[in-house]
Amino acid sequence: MADTNRIWTAALIVIGDEILSGRTQDKNVAQIALWLNVQGIRLREVRVVADDRDAIIEAVNSLRVRNDYLFTTGGIGPTHDDITVDSIAAALGVGVEINEQARAILTAYYETRGGLTEARLRMARVPAGASLIENRMSGAPGIRHGNIFIMAGVPHITAGMLDRLTGTLEGGLPVLSATIGCWVAESEIAELLAATERAHDGCQIGSYPFFREGRTGANFVIRSTGQDGLDACVSDLSAALERGGWAVTAGGI
Amino acid sequence: MADTNRIWTAALIVIGDEILSGRTQDKNVAQIALWLNVQGIRLREVRVVADDRDAIIEAVNSLRVRNDYLFTTGGIGPTHDDITVDSIAAALGVGVEINEQARAILTAYYETRGGLTEARLRMARVPAGASLIENRMSGAPGIRHGNIFIMAGVPHITAGMLDRLTGTLEGGLPVLSATIGCWVAESEIAELLAATERAHDGCQIGSYPFFREGRTGANFVIRSTGQDGLDACVSDLSAALERGGWAVTAGGI
Repeated sequence: MADTNRIWTAALIVIGDEILSGRTQDKNVAQIALWLNVQGIRLREVRVVADDRDAIIEAVNSLRVRNDYLFTTGGIGPTHDDITVDSIAAALGVGVEINEQARAILTAYYETRGGLTEARLRMARVPAGASLIENRMSGAPGIRHGNIFIMAGVPHITAGMLDRLTGTLEGGLPVLSATIGCWVAESEIAELLAATERAHDGCQIGSYPFFREGRTGANFVIRSTGQDGLDACVSDLSAALERGGWAVTAGGI
Repeated sequence: MADTNRIWTAALIVIGDEILSGRTQDKNVAQIALWLNVQGIRLREVRVVADDRDAIIEAVNSLRVRNDYLFTTGGIGPTHDDITVDSIAAALGVGVEINEQARAILTAYYETRGGLTEARLRMARVPAGASLIENRMSGAPGIRHGNIFIMAGVPHITAGMLDRLTGTLEGGLPVLSATIGCWVAESEIAELLAATERAHDGCQIGSYPFFREGRTGANFVIRSTGQDGLDACVSDLSAALERGGWAVTAGGI
């Protein structure tokens, strides 16, 4: 019988100088986090590293062994700064090979777009032994090698690859969450939050303060893998806040 | 004489379940990256970790020794899930103390806001030996301990703390950058990009493809610490692209 309490985890490595320079606002962390949760997999850690071979190798080797899955985004295009495949192959201690299926995909894709040049053929290179992740957006596929998923950096292409992977990865129970909000300074109810969390095993309460329309408020996100436990915690927290004189907005403010 | 070629580096740890769950879109990476560059400091790596003591300790101890500066965002509020200060103190092997200056700031701030409760006093706790980073937005200060800068998670509060630190950290030459754009598939000019980069020592060329208005294009970001080297590289790259028949848009498309 499967262990339904097992927590499946993933890590993500965002590869790209453009994120570290501040030029580009990353969108893949949130996108992949939300997708993973639906698969019953928790994103446990993220690293953003430069287009730097040693940095990629170190991150891959730290994260692939201690998580069920490792995702990477970025650096799989045709240009000189696209070094993800070579770096991951080096991390795994395997060679780089042309994947014949990828070559066929790229040949077909570029047939009406100027042909498969040497630069474009770079996008058929994979760590030896890898399989492909279909890319319905722009030809060049993503790559799977063992528990490593090598994805595009451009968010809508990443989205297409995730879509292709939906339902194919083993996971556990998705984390359920509910949000409630109050016009209260979180510092006024810190003890109430902590006591409620302590009273509800398996639930976590996150507190996210904000300042809006000249007033202080906070949203509270309750997380659990069980619907009953989640409902009980939300109900107790709401009741405690109402008793304290704070009106509770279901769904958050 | 100072070594003007020395590269100063920083790392950033984003602490928060809300980023890893996908609930909140991080804005601090880009904000801090841009600010650091103006200080002549390069953001070399980022990790996003959960509100988890062991994860924070591991990240702090990996990153603080191999970078000139380490920044953290998140987890310094008054509630039970705010464990950054305790975790960093544990990483450093020091105790946690009430900072008397922070207590005075919080006492003044909360004088008209219900007084300094026990929960609010938590925000005066610092790793022993720390100094403060002023927070003009909302009272609770940031914390500096050696080369570690412990900042708020809420982006506009982080921004105020960065503003307070502007000009106080030693750095090197800021990285200068210029962007040009073309309506070209980057795969058509991959060799041209690589050759231009090779011909310009100290310059990096990043290639960022996009698909817009039904057409394929790419922006090229050239980076260097020297203005002359940067200008020469931009000029050569532009000329090579124009010779290839691609009109170049200065500033990018």
